Amino acid sequence: MPITGCAYYPEHWPRERWKQDAEIMRKAGLSVVRMGEFAWDKFEPQPGKYDFAWMDEAIDILSQEGLKIVMCTPTATPPPWLLTQHPEILRVEPNGVRVSAGGRRHSCANVPAYLRHSRRLVDTFTRHYGSHPAIIGWQIDNEFGCGETTRCYCDHCRQRFQEWLLEKYDTLDTLNAAWGTQFWGMTYSDWSEIPIPGITTEPQSPGMRLDYRRFSSDSWVRFQQMQVEFLRQNAPGRWITHNFMIRHWSLDYWKLAEDLDFVSYDNYPHGLRGPAETAMNLDLMRSLKRKPFWIMEQQPGRVNWHPYNPPVPPGQVKAWSHQNIAHGAEAVVYFRFRAARFGQEQYHDGLLKWDGSFDQGYFEAQEVADDIKNVPPLTRPQAKIGIIFDYEDLWTVELEPVHRDFSYWQLVYELYQHFWEASIPVDFLPRAADLTGYETVILPCGILQHEGEAEKWSAWVEKGGKLILTFRTAVREPGSIAVNEALPAGFTSLTGARVTGFHTAPPATYTDWPDHRPGTAVISPQGSSIAYKIWAETLETTSGESLFTYKDGMLAGKTAITHRRFGKGSVVYLGCWVTDFEPILGSFKKKPLQEYLLNGEDGSTWRITFDTADFSVQYEQVESGTS
Amino acid sequence: MPITGCAYYPEHWPRERWKQDAEIMRKAGLSVVRMGEFAWDKFEPQPGKYDFAWMDEAIDILSQEGLKIVMCTPTATPPPWLLTQHPEILRVEPNGVRVSAGGRRHSCANVPAYLRHSRRLVDTFTRHYGSHPAIIGWQIDNEFGCGETTRCYCDHCRQRFQEWLLEKYDTLDTLNAAWGTQFWGMTYSDWSEIPIPGITTEPQSPGMRLDYRRFSSDSWVRFQQMQVEFLRQNAPGRWITHNFMIRHWSLDYWKLAEDLDFVSYDNYPHGLRGPAETAMNLDLMRSLKRKPFWIMEQQPGRVNWHPYNPPVPPGQVKAWSHQNIAHGAEAVVYFRFRAARFGQEQYHDGLLKWDGSFDQGYFEAQEVADDIKNVPPLTRPQAKIGIIFDYEDLWTVELEPVHRDFSYWQLVYELYQHFWEASIPVDFLPRAADLTGYETVILPCGILQHEGEAEKWSAWVEKGGKLILTFRTAVREPGSIAVNEALPAGFTSLTGARVTGFHTAPPATYTDWPDHRPGTAVISPQGSSIAYKIWAETLETTSGESLFTYKDGMLAGKTAITHRRFGKGSVVYLGCWVTDFEPILGSFKKKPLQEYLLNGEDGSTWRITFDTADFSVQYEQVESGTS
Amino acid sequence: MPITGCAYYPEHWPRERWKQDAEIMRKAGLSVVRMGEFAWDKFEPQPGKYDFAWMDEAIDILSQEGLKIVMCTPTATPPPWLLTQHPEILRVEPNGVRVSAGGRRHSCANVPAYLRHSRRLVDTFTRHYGSHPAIIGWQIDNEFGCGETTRCYCDHCRQRFQEWLLEKYDTLDTLNAAWGTQFWGMTYSDWSEIPIPGITTEPQSPGMRLDYRRFSSDSWVRFQQMQVEFLRQNAPGRWITHNFMIRHWSLDYWKLAEDLDFVSYDNYPHGLRGPAETAMNLDLMRSLKRKPFWIMEQQPGRVNWHPYNPPVPPGQVKAWSHQNIAHGAEAVVYFRFRAARFGQEQYHDGLLKWDGSFDQGYFEAQEVADDIKNVPPLTRPQAKIGIIFDYEDLWTVELEPVHRDFSYWQLVYELYQHFWEASIPVDFLPRAADLTGYETVILPCGILQHEGEAEKWSAWVEKGGKLILTFRTAVREPGSIAVNEALPAGFTSLTGARVTGFHTAPPATYTDWPDHRPGTAVISPQGSSIAYKIWAETLETTSGESLFTYKDGMLAGKTAITHRRFGKGSVVYLGCWVTDFEPILGSFKKKPLQEYLLNGEDGSTWRITFDTADFSVQYEQVESGTS
Repeated sequence: MPITGCAYYPEHWPRERWKQDAEIMRKAGLSVVRMGEFAWDKFEPQPGKYDFAWMDEAIDILSQEGLKIVMCTPTATPPPWLLTQHPEILRVEPNGVRVSAGGRRHSCANVPAYLRHSRRLVDTFTRHYGSHPAIIGWQIDNEFGCGETTRCYCDHCRQRFQEWLLEKYDTLDTLNAAWGTQFWGMTYSDWSEIPIPGITTEPQSPGMRLDYRRFSSDSWVRFQQMQVEFLRQNAPGRWITHNFMIRHWSLDYWKLAEDLDFVSYDNYPHGLRGPAETAMNLDLMRSLKRKPFWIMEQQPGRVNWHPYNPPVPPGQVKAWSHQNIAHGAEAVVYFRFRAARFGQEQYHDGLLKWDGSFDQGYFEAQEVADDIKNVPPLTRPQAKIGIIFDYEDLWTVELEPVHRDFSYWQLVYELYQHFWEASIPVDFLPRAADLTGYETVILPCGILQHEGEAEKWSAWVEKGGKLILTFRTAVREPGSIAVNEALPAGFTSLTGARVTGFHTAPPATYTDWPDHRPGTAVISPQGSSIAYKIWAETLETTSGESLFTYKDGMLAGKTAITHRRFGKGSVVYLGCWVTDFEPILGSFKKKPLQEYLLNGEDGSTWRITFDTADFSVQYEQVESGTS
Repeated sequence: MPITGCAYYPEHWPRERWKQDAEIMRKAGLSVVRMGEFAWDKFEPQPGKYDFAWMDEAIDILSQEGLKIVMCTPTATPPPWLLTQHPEILRVEPNGVRVSAGGRRHSCANVPAYLRHSRRLVDTFTRHYGSHPAIIGWQIDNEFGCGETTRCYCDHCRQRFQEWLLEKYDTLDTLNAAWGTQFWGMTYSDWSEIPIPGITTEPQSPGMRLDYRRFSSDSWVRFQQMQVEFLRQNAPGRWITHNFMIRHWSLDYWKLAEDLDFVSYDNYPHGLRGPAETAMNLDLMRSLKRKPFWIMEQQPGRVNWHPYNPPVPPGQVKAWSHQNIAHGAEAVVYFRFRAARFGQEQYHDGLLKWDGSFDQGYFEAQEVADDIKNVPPLTRPQAKIGIIFDYEDLWTVELEPVHRDFSYWQLVYELYQHFWEASIPVDFLPRAADLTGYETVILPCGILQHEGEAEKWSAWVEKGGKLILTFRTAVREPGSIAVNEALPAGFTSLTGARVTGFHTAPPATYTDWPDHRPGTAVISPQGSSIAYKIWAETLETTSGESLFTYKDGMLAGKTAITHRRFGKGSVVYLGCWVTDFEPILGSFKKKPLQEYLLNGEDGSTWRITFDTADFSVQYEQVESGTS
Repeated sequence: MPITGCAYYPEHWPRERWKQDAEIMRKAGLSVVRMGEFAWDKFEPQPGKYDFAWMDEAIDILSQEGLKIVMCTPTATPPPWLLTQHPEILRVEPNGVRVSAGGRRHSCANVPAYLRHSRRLVDTFTRHYGSHPAIIGWQIDNEFGCGETTRCYCDHCRQRFQEWLLEKYDTLDTLNAAWGTQFWGMTYSDWSEIPIPGITTEPQSPGMRLDYRRFSSDSWVRFQQMQVEFLRQNAPGRWITHNFMIRHWSLDYWKLAEDLDFVSYDNYPHGLRGPAETAMNLDLMRSLKRKPFWIMEQQPGRVNWHPYNPPVPPGQVKAWSHQNIAHGAEAVVYFRFRAARFGQEQYHDGLLKWDGSFDQGYFEAQEVADDIKNVPPLTRPQAKIGIIFDYEDLWTVELEPVHRDFSYWQLVYELYQHFWEASIPVDFLPRAADLTGYETVILPCGILQHEGEAEKWSAWVEKGGKLILTFRTAVREPGSIAVNEALPAGFTSLTGARVTGFHTAPPATYTDWPDHRPGTAVISPQGSSIAYKIWAETLETTSGESLFTYKDGMLAGKTAITHRRFGKGSVVYLGCWVTDFEPILGSFKKKPLQEYLLNGEDGSTWRITFDTADFSVQYEQVESGTS
């Protein structure tokens, strides 16, 4: 069965209370407890003097109530004594300001002292707890990148970046060519001349900035790998995970997921725009390794970091919990057991309140445990629809949106939402994915060119795949320099269409040059029209055919969307950001309820029905299993 | 009689002009002149070379016209030579940027060089002028904290903060427990590890930040004390004051007022929202020492620091002047005699214009002097209504408002305004005040718990007092950690009610999670309803009774406001931020005119009537005096 | 005939392509090519090792197609090796942050290393190319001040500023008096104490800040002079120019223009508010030296630095080109030949696209060349209307607008627009201009007082000139201290009126003190009323007469606008910012088309008619020439 649990901080509560807390957890049907991620200061109160006794005792008490432990490596908060010894551990902002101690995630991933002490601590810590029978698995550190901390701009980072570039490009000629440094006279003649992003009066090279995003993401992937290696050695037989975040893209999650056994996810819907975006994040998490994942932190009530921190209506926590399971989560761990009485998150709800009395979340967690007690472990089958989600494409567009409101994330969200409203399952795919098994694959704004991709995808289309490419596809070489051929570069044979021009569509509020808008809508030969926004490309067909033309304005009459049948499949090129995707993605009946079909471990099939309005959830076994 | 005066800068004008200026002052009916606060550079043009001759002469000339002098210690602007010798005197911003010279109030209160030179200068200066017969009193420095300068973030401050903490907490264990440093792994093992507020990716400890507000305020209180000591010794028989500011709360004004003979206040209504907020500030000033105060700077026309610097309609300066007196001011000193011809405040009006011709303010100041010439010195009697105003409560909420629009100041303002509209006098009270003599006392958002307070106030209620507690009362221990008991902590017996939950009420513009609002209104058993905003707590009564319940939304039917009779008095707990306080505070007839009753020094009683619409003012002796 | 050309970067494209590019240019009718401004790194790839061969070859190839070359000194982007050797070359922001390398215009004009290396490079470079037969003229550097880079705040600047002040004021007493440093106690006793603008809690001296604007502008004028000297020596017979920018005022363009043979201008209308502001900028450029100018960069399509980068409708590039010529441009050089495939401006259109295919701009450039091929070189005759445009007045108001929305530029724009709508030519004049030949001269917000100006202008008025002075005229002495006499200082005899008060007019959205607005409109004796905004002065007439009085509000009945006949001329003083200038500037018939009369080099007269709606342009020879 799917399981539930909670985050617990024994170091925040008197020892006398631990036993009672464990009993309360058991009574709520919880079976796992996550601990330790911020307790380096307690595990090593003085340099080299370790103290694990208190945690040993906490584990004992929790185990006695049948609870299993997820232990975290506590590298997210190096202790004050270490920050005092090595202030260079603290991150530096682009303006050169070194952040102060006292928050969290204030470390740079490239400072030798932080790496050395982290290695030492992780080694010692995992040796001590690696074989503990109560510990079933490990979380590494906590929420890499949280609070915009992925990128640091210190001298260590600059030096490591130069080394990373040397490794990647081998020669300065290659680098100069890849970035096009000749622009604004920035040809580098020595690796040490290469700057990192900083405060400038005019922007720096997009190639350098894109590589800095790659480098910064890689730095944390490498930091995680270091810990994975210790754990594989010191904690045999235990799984390893890390908790990923909502609406987060400074880290390449495909790469970060690689070394882990499975992905965990911290689900705080109040940072999102409603159930569709919550669902999109969950599907992205499941897709990262195409397997069940954990909710390592589930919002249990009000949060504390929102501009308004709105209340959570009764039933919503329960509904969120079941939505997780329906999207493929095999565990839901609530954050946190009891609201903190001190520190920065006092206004964040727990299952219990400050004074230990039960909060609304407690009763809902209990109901969830009860609801799923007869449900087998569930897995979502592969979807028929795949949407490619690529962090490098996102970064490239983020660095140069051209139109202020152009957002890669928003485009993916709008595409996703179209299917979500009809309860049609969607998988997210990496750019290099094998497309076998998918009926439709969408590449939203795949701005970077990938060698061999057009050929590979042609073959898949020929066999029956439906490929949908959007505007801004295959515009740039990997160093973020423009291609020297017709757009979408490399795909014009497959699409049977090429781009003849691209234009932004400023919002109606833009009036400085009022006639400088390309138009407002596209129209099909049958006369149905759709408004578009933000981006508009004009197309010229060769072997393809025009699906929609621009209806009005300076682009009137030009082709906006094309279609080409190829082999058993077809390709659509979507030249503009339409406000209704139905004619492109298909017309589906919108469902009043969200419906999910999942496979039980025992071979059974389950339908979960979820009502986003009244929070009611239904689990129904539609086919019985074999075991 | 109440008196009038002006700020004068002889150092800004040629000596030949001084005599004429003095005559003009006399003709305007002014009797005091304030001087010297920015003239350190003139008093000590080179290190250790003093020049008091020019000021001696200015005083002589002014005295000859019968004017009395208020002399200021000139520590607000250390001279360029000192800032060049000791650049570390200049304040440091949280991002580490040291402010440049050339403004004012750019000094840190904790830099040894500034303290040493200030001591030396103040000692020399007050020895020279302490016994001057024309000088009736002293203003220390000028507007501590002006321009958000109370807090500095330099290394001297960090070290002094650590010392201040050592003195306050004695042991690190006490400090770690008081702040709850275990949160995010910040247990301190050495005093030197403790950071000050700075740029961080995630917030620092609320306990640390609250103590830094206390410490910063204390630093200036201590700086003032140093000067008070010199003055008590060198200027016997002269009163000592300091000029406080509008809508200012980085300094704990209760503490700053302690060492002074009386409080002065710089009244610039254009920084406020109209006559009610002006009145509120004046009542706060009178309350700080429960005695008459001075207006040391009165806006005489247009100011220069406002986004629009709007014009002041004829009669308004006169009206402001009388409003001051009606609220308990015994002197109104206009800032400034003549508009500055140079420097940063050239667009700030004076009584005279740049070219020495009379401005509108001059004629109005003259009328004021005439209006009050037969009025005895006046004192406002103690009010029946007390509103507690506490800087530590304000800071605690400011650091964690939970709802973006939650403002302690705004809440106090709305409560105050209710009485102001009916011309009902209000006193502000410190948290530790003796409540004797008050009929009603309101504690708005008294978030910090104070030992023994519930018992003390119970006794007062029992004897007949009416106590009104609002939401967010007694939620935190002094170190800003949550209490471990039912809310309002310690008061649940007295209120006969406890809080079962608290919620924010996001504004109607918040639509991300549209059903995540608690509701819109509360309703009485009689069916009258009141809208609420920002904050909503649900209550459970024991010995108390429900006054209002939530009318709609997710809190519908739960108790919102309670009432309990106790002894001869009663207690109200206001669980939500209602938009109409009438059912709680009482129903009073709104008056078209502001009316004030004051006691003359001679035992007479005076009524001042003030029309905020046409600026007309009436002084009427309603009872004659004995002398 | 007027000529056309393009900016070309041979260093961005393979050598094999150069020949083809040159042919394409020729076919588009282009005759000049601008090159070299960002290629220091290519000209000097290693310290002291020069490489001019590639450019020599490029010039050869272009020459073979009959193209003439405008060569640029490449000092806008010092190469990475130089920035690594001398990181102090990089500018410093007011907060002390040194900008990073990798953008452009990141140099400080006062760092010795930058000056030394620039001198060496410019000398070598101009020796090599000075006498090249294909090179017809030189552009110095590129867009001084672009991206808010005129002012630097480094230690070199501070020291140079102190030296600049010593040279200007000679003694500290003079400086202290000119700035009024006594305000806030800032009397300087040593030159080294004088600060530069920085981060402060309260503003620094307006005198110091105004002088820093003067000094910073002078620094670049001096930098340009250094290059002019090398060019005069090394490039005999070639003209020298620099490319000025749209809506730019950190540099005193009157001074920057002095040493040049003519002014060039980079015309990017998308940074402006439509055709009237485009025209205003063009007229300012023509006025700087009262002679034809070049458009050194003409927007050829979409730009890349705008929030939306809107598309450009067909015909607009052609229309912009002709508008340039109609305003007195003798050359239109498109930026750039081909859209960059790398670097920060990839989304900036060229005449060709990334892949070398023709973009819309190419065809329009070709049409332009065709349209003008039979037109002689044209010159605009002196206008009858002169508007004074003074950078020091602008800076003074910018530093202390008093009303948030007070903008010198906006005022000039509104005055200009009144004439533009009627196709009435306007010249811009420096403050010290000889007014001979003008019928009407307007001094908008001439806030600084100039010695002898009133006398000079009186004589001009007496002879028949119509002088229009606005509010905020002659209010300050050159050190930015207020005058000590009636306003407008020195002009009250000429105007026959003096200012009795000045007031801001906050917008209707300002409601904190709702009755604190001076009123809404002025009214003439005949009863026609005009709304005013932002600023309102009340006037008192002596020999002048009242034209308009305030209609309502607190200023009702007072004089707002005056008129005085003097000799054969007249003077108007405009006391408030009216929203319709017709009664002051005259009533002109608005023309549906823009019309221009220009003189052909051959003595002919040409009329250019320009339709801003459909972009159509007509060249008509209305009088034939003699040659």
